Amino acid sequence: MSFAKLDELGHRLQALEHALAILGADEATHMAVGGGEARAEAMSALAGMHHRQATEPRIADWIGAAEGEALNEAQSAALREFKRQYINMTALPSEFVERQTRARMRSEQLWRDLRPKNDWAGFLPALEGVVVLMREEAAQRAEALGLDPYDALMEQYDPGNCAADITPVFAELKAFLAGFIPEALDVQARKLAARPPRPLAGNYAVDKQRDLGLAMMGAVGFDFTRGSLSVSHHPFCGGVPTDVRITTRYKTNDFLSALMGVLHETGHALYEQNLPREWAHWPLGRARGMAVHESQSLFVEKQIGRNPSFWRWALPVVEKHLGETIAYDDIMPQVHRVERGLIRVDADEVTYPLHVILRYELEQDLVAGRLDVADLPEAWDAKMRAYLGLSTIDNPADGPMQDVHWPNGAFGYFPSYTLGAMMAAQQWAAIERGVPGVQDDIADGKFDAINDWRREKIWKEASFYSTPDLIERATGEKLNAAYFIGHLEMRYGN
Amino acid sequence: MSFAKLDELGHRLQALEHALAILGADEATHMAVGGGEARAEAMSALAGMHHRQATEPRIADWIGAAEGEALNEAQSAALREFKRQYINMTALPSEFVERQTRARMRSEQLWRDLRPKNDWAGFLPALEGVVVLMREEAAQRAEALGLDPYDALMEQYDPGNCAADITPVFAELKAFLAGFIPEALDVQARKLAARPPRPLAGNYAVDKQRDLGLAMMGAVGFDFTRGSLSVSHHPFCGGVPTDVRITTRYKTNDFLSALMGVLHETGHALYEQNLPREWAHWPLGRARGMAVHESQSLFVEKQIGRNPSFWRWALPVVEKHLGETIAYDDIMPQVHRVERGLIRVDADEVTYPLHVILRYELEQDLVAGRLDVADLPEAWDAKMRAYLGLSTIDNPADGPMQDVHWPNGAFGYFPSYTLGAMMAAQQWAAIERGVPGVQDDIADGKFDAINDWRREKIWKEASFYSTPDLIERATGEKLNAAYFIGHLEMRYGN
Repeated sequence: MSFAKLDELGHRLQALEHALAILGADEATHMAVGGGEARAEAMSALAGMHHRQATEPRIADWIGAAEGEALNEAQSAALREFKRQYINMTALPSEFVERQTRARMRSEQLWRDLRPKNDWAGFLPALEGVVVLMREEAAQRAEALGLDPYDALMEQYDPGNCAADITPVFAELKAFLAGFIPEALDVQARKLAARPPRPLAGNYAVDKQRDLGLAMMGAVGFDFTRGSLSVSHHPFCGGVPTDVRITTRYKTNDFLSALMGVLHETGHALYEQNLPREWAHWPLGRARGMAVHESQSLFVEKQIGRNPSFWRWALPVVEKHLGETIAYDDIMPQVHRVERGLIRVDADEVTYPLHVILRYELEQDLVAGRLDVADLPEAWDAKMRAYLGLSTIDNPADGPMQDVHWPNGAFGYFPSYTLGAMMAAQQWAAIERGVPGVQDDIADGKFDAINDWRREKIWKEASFYSTPDLIERATGEKLNAAYFIGHLEMRYGN
Repeated sequence: MSFAKLDELGHRLQALEHALAILGADEATHMAVGGGEARAEAMSALAGMHHRQATEPRIADWIGAAEGEALNEAQSAALREFKRQYINMTALPSEFVERQTRARMRSEQLWRDLRPKNDWAGFLPALEGVVVLMREEAAQRAEALGLDPYDALMEQYDPGNCAADITPVFAELKAFLAGFIPEALDVQARKLAARPPRPLAGNYAVDKQRDLGLAMMGAVGFDFTRGSLSVSHHPFCGGVPTDVRITTRYKTNDFLSALMGVLHETGHALYEQNLPREWAHWPLGRARGMAVHESQSLFVEKQIGRNPSFWRWALPVVEKHLGETIAYDDIMPQVHRVERGLIRVDADEVTYPLHVILRYELEQDLVAGRLDVADLPEAWDAKMRAYLGLSTIDNPADGPMQDVHWPNGAFGYFPSYTLGAMMAAQQWAAIERGVPGVQDDIADGKFDAINDWRREKIWKEASFYSTPDLIERATGEKLNAAYFIGHLEMRYGN
């Protein structure tokens, strides 16, 4: 039976993926500094074994034969996802992948060197090389998948997402934010003037912050028998569903920074920890995609962790661990701070979508060839001035050089962040409709009913549905901007 | 060129070995408790890939063809070790290995359950099953290697070691210890009566003990850019040469326990960290074997770490980290404590060899079929009474059930411990002859000259020579008991 061969292949690939995931998390947390070269060689060799085993031509035969076999519902879905993985992984010839990997690695290394020097001219040729290969990749993926080139790139991250659906939603959001950001800033200024918050103590020992983070993780549902928290330079969620590794970094003068990071990564971790175990060795058993994953992290960080009700419960927990009594009216201006800025990763939830929409628009132009890489600084600056009233023309380090994504060749990924924020708001609205008393639950530090909804509607479905279908089934309607807009209006508006 | 194919194979196998080594160390140190099942599945699948890739029939063709190629000295040695690995790994049919692995796993699990219950009768059938398969394994290895069955088992751990060489050395040591143990106990009793040591404070915070351990590791030569110290239930040295993971466990009432463990594992780590990097992807580049490895750990723990000169230097370091002023005459009775006991892993360096010789004699009888498993408790008890004056007849948990080795099917491994102790003493004697002022160096906390000798004579040779040849070349004579006996006499005798 051919499906059994795919099933066995799934186990083999899972072992290599397990090794790569743990080795990757370990590299960022526990590896000795001198171990990097051997680690890179080992991971590259393991990734090569994985690619060879996942792209063997006989797999196409197994898939074809399995399509004629009597399969149950889960097996049929598993077969569809095996096929999707196989098509995506074989869309590019090995020779091209190797050439592209080398170009991406050189470009990313150069970017790490030149961004601090604000040297756009020095970086330009490398990025041009990456974009040439990206256009070739998009064309090949489009051919293999029968999609438009930009949609074919997005397909890697969020199966089923396409620009035709996303563009109008983003357009609505962009139009709303044009008027709303001045309003939110005005509301904030009036509140701060009416009651200037007292500054916090600003001195928090790392081990106390860690204990606070662990307490919050446990409260919102993290399973410590199947995961852990450690420290890394950049926070991440890695590891495997049975052993999810999340990390944060600590500033001793600001506990919110690490805590919000912990809540964000805990959101990713809850999704991984609650995926269906019986599908774990199939592509079907994976998280659906980057936007849905981001919706889970943003749900915990923004819908829960920046919810005013949450802080009614959280402040005594903070006091217990940090020893500081903080008034609700002193913490909320920090939790809900809005500020126009140049840097996406530092942006608040009101201004963040414009950073993403800017990139979404520019990378579509780059993919289509309507924009040359050499013209990026001007194009970026024009949009930045139009959307946020800020200029980056003399500051490419904080303009088109600010993120690792493009230097690393990842195009089509940025939309996931804001799609995730919209999905999180839409899920929250559905929970408020469907689960009585959730605001009270949050104010009491009770997250079981909320998590039961999320497990049932999102987590246990894994990759059973496409991204758009998963959201529509979970919330009762197609993804749209209304709930996110409503969320921002309620939290930040007049 | 066929050697190039072996070279490429070496890189592939190294990647899988890297993954298995890091995943193994991670499992004991950082893995979430619920991650064990998925980890075991992943490691088993990776080990299977390693075994399949390392035992492919075409490798025999490559080896045969490479033997006719023009190779330099290192390549010739590499080829010889590729061949040795291939013969050892293909000596047993896969079907047999799988059957044996299942029997060993069941037996070890049963042992973990029944040892605390002192239930020999319940455990007997499982151990009998393991021994039947071990005899079959020994016969098959003997056939493949052209060795006696017991020598063929030892060959896995220490290439070149054979009972014909070891038995007379162990016999000499056994005869010496029969008279020497009473003498050492008598010397100890007289010293303790003449000057009863003051008890130590007996309360040491874990983080202070950890800092002390790190300071000692660094002093004796551990490279922290390529390794680290963490905590596990059983101390070990794992990881890879570029990232050596050593562990210890802490008792807050006794700092020597963790510190001596740290020094022991640091000895293993120094060997791994100083293996030749250019051979790292060949079997030739590995540590030579278990006895030589143990000689390196015991060198640091016993020859250095229990050396009276070492404590002249170490006590101020202890004081700096633990805050306790300890008199030399109060610490040495603990560092040199001798006591007859039932448990091998708790034994001091005087009585330890008799624990090993007892097992060496019994397992030769088991391999040869001269001893039935059912008769083990009586045979063990008889030797225990003869060698150490202690009985285990009513206490099989501390008799033949005390170690994991036999339940796990590892026969032929025990001699390595005492061979390592003898090698360490013989190396120390050679260093004293060849490197001026080493006792003064140790009293000054200087270990460079000692480590230079060890790097040159042991570490950089990796698996270039057989175990007996390596020791003879390093020390100028064949392995013998005289130096270890002299070491014990000087440290513990009249």
